[in-house]
Amino acid sequence: MSVLVVGSTALDSIKTPKAENPRLLGGSASHAGVAASFFAPVNLVGVVGDDFPKAYLALYRKHGISLEGLQILPGKTFHWSGEYEVNMNNRRTLTTELGVFATFSPELPKAYQQTPFVLLANIAPALQIHVLDQMKKAKFVVADTMDLWLNTAMSDLLRLLKRVDALVLNDSEARQLTQDDNVITAAAKIHKLGPKFVIIKKGEHGSILSGPSGLFIAPAYPLKKVVDPTGAGDSFVGGMMGYLSQAKGSIEANLRRAIIYGSVTASFCCEGFGLKNTTKTTRADIEKRVRELEKMTRV
Amino acid sequence: MSVLVVGSTALDSIKTPKAENPRLLGGSASHAGVAASFFAPVNLVGVVGDDFPKAYLALYRKHGISLEGLQILPGKTFHWSGEYEVNMNNRRTLTTELGVFATFSPELPKAYQQTPFVLLANIAPALQIHVLDQMKKAKFVVADTMDLWLNTAMSDLLRLLKRVDALVLNDSEARQLTQDDNVITAAAKIHKLGPKFVIIKKGEHGSILSGPSGLFIAPAYPLKKVVDPTGAGDSFVGGMMGYLSQAKGSIEANLRRAIIYGSVTASFCCEGFGLKNTTKTTRADIEKRVRELEKMTRV
Repeated sequence: MSVLVVGSTALDSIKTPKAENPRLLGGSASHAGVAASFFAPVNLVGVVGDDFPKAYLALYRKHGISLEGLQILPGKTFHWSGEYEVNMNNRRTLTTELGVFATFSPELPKAYQQTPFVLLANIAPALQIHVLDQMKKAKFVVADTMDLWLNTAMSDLLRLLKRVDALVLNDSEARQLTQDDNVITAAAKIHKLGPKFVIIKKGEHGSILSGPSGLFIAPAYPLKKVVDPTGAGDSFVGGMMGYLSQAKGSIEANLRRAIIYGSVTASFCCEGFGLKNTTKTTRADIEKRVRELEKMTRV
Repeated sequence: MSVLVVGSTALDSIKTPKAENPRLLGGSASHAGVAASFFAPVNLVGVVGDDFPKAYLALYRKHGISLEGLQILPGKTFHWSGEYEVNMNNRRTLTTELGVFATFSPELPKAYQQTPFVLLANIAPALQIHVLDQMKKAKFVVADTMDLWLNTAMSDLLRLLKRVDALVLNDSEARQLTQDDNVITAAAKIHKLGPKFVIIKKGEHGSILSGPSGLFIAPAYPLKKVVDPTGAGDSFVGGMMGYLSQAKGSIEANLRRAIIYGSVTASFCCEGFGLKNTTKTTRADIEKRVRELEKMTRV
């Protein structure tokens, strides 16, 4: 089964204490889409400007990503630039130039509207809702979000939450959304806002799934070196949805393993700038790390 | 088999945003000793002043802790007072009155010198070495430490590390000891200093064991409410050593499960001030949470 991925498609200029990388392929939909593509056909929904490098379109296609839903409009592609501190845990936005993204309205080609697995990657909640309104046979809908929308679009986000099966967000966002400092009780509060499944990301400390059969505490794949964590959260949820869309059996039964696949896919993302390392990764590389990670958590 | 526990035996006055608790039973050896006592007979080594409440001696005894190695000297018991911030992750020392602890020299009764499992709980490394010098048949030696000794007694600590089987320390201490920001590569550097096993504690994010058979990523037991985390790290290593001393088979084969027992024992510690909740806990309570935690990590 296919995965529909809507989100931002951007050019990222990323500074770290050791390097500077201008105009990399980035954005939540790019990271999530490439991550999902290791497991499933991906239907991408996004917008880029006429300055968007042809090489990046070719890269999407190489990963079996359908671009029928990618709008190419006159103007500039969304450009984000940011800087990481030494320990790679804190990042600072330097510039955000929305370009054609400012007036983006995601319109789904007919063929996309039947996609069973829907990943609403990080983007304004109103746009996530607009995508949902066009879906005909969604089987499992996951939304990602970020602090920006908690600060600027809370009522849209709350409307969205009533319509998704799962919400993915990081621990500080879970605290902000619920005004609860404890992530376990915060997860319980988020269920009351709608989602049956809540997945709280904790970066290098892994993630926590809360659902009808209780909690699942998932590890991150331990990395000896993090080059650039940009897009790791998007890769995580993309890998998770890709795996889930192909697995036999019930979604709930497969979700724990899907999270492990998401963690591992995200680990490859962190080992290179932008999508540089992810796009060099193979399904076999992912399977190898999944086996390693399972060994590292077995008592 | 018995566990020898040496460390501080103190009175702790603990302030949190919600409560104030003066002169609780505290200290690394108290927390680690009570935690180990759920699993094994404990030989305690420490010092208290003549102001030490009789009720606390009775409490040790109730937990089957041998006090033959507890010196009771004229003067005041070590008194520590500290304050936690709202989120319970940061604490600030208000006062430290060493009292009889200032000149403490741990002298082991003959009967203690054959104890196979040796837990050098947090205390000056020179004193930890002095205890090791008196041991005749140690089978497994674990040392805990803290940032204070990294700042003030590094050469003693390095001498100690050559003589222990395992070092337990928290993630910020691992970074400080190795000058390495990545805990995975920091663990590798600590092995080179001596210990075959390195256990890095990450508080609510669990812990990582590094040893000859690779990494083990262990979860913390997820708590809905943390009342007071003082002594959680000592409870963790105490529970781990207690379990280990009773388990059949090789230490390496049992260490992963021992860490799960340590995590669970520490979770009870966090649910009350000082040792208040730990001392109300039963082995059955621990077993129940161990089963829950294993279910929460099973893929």
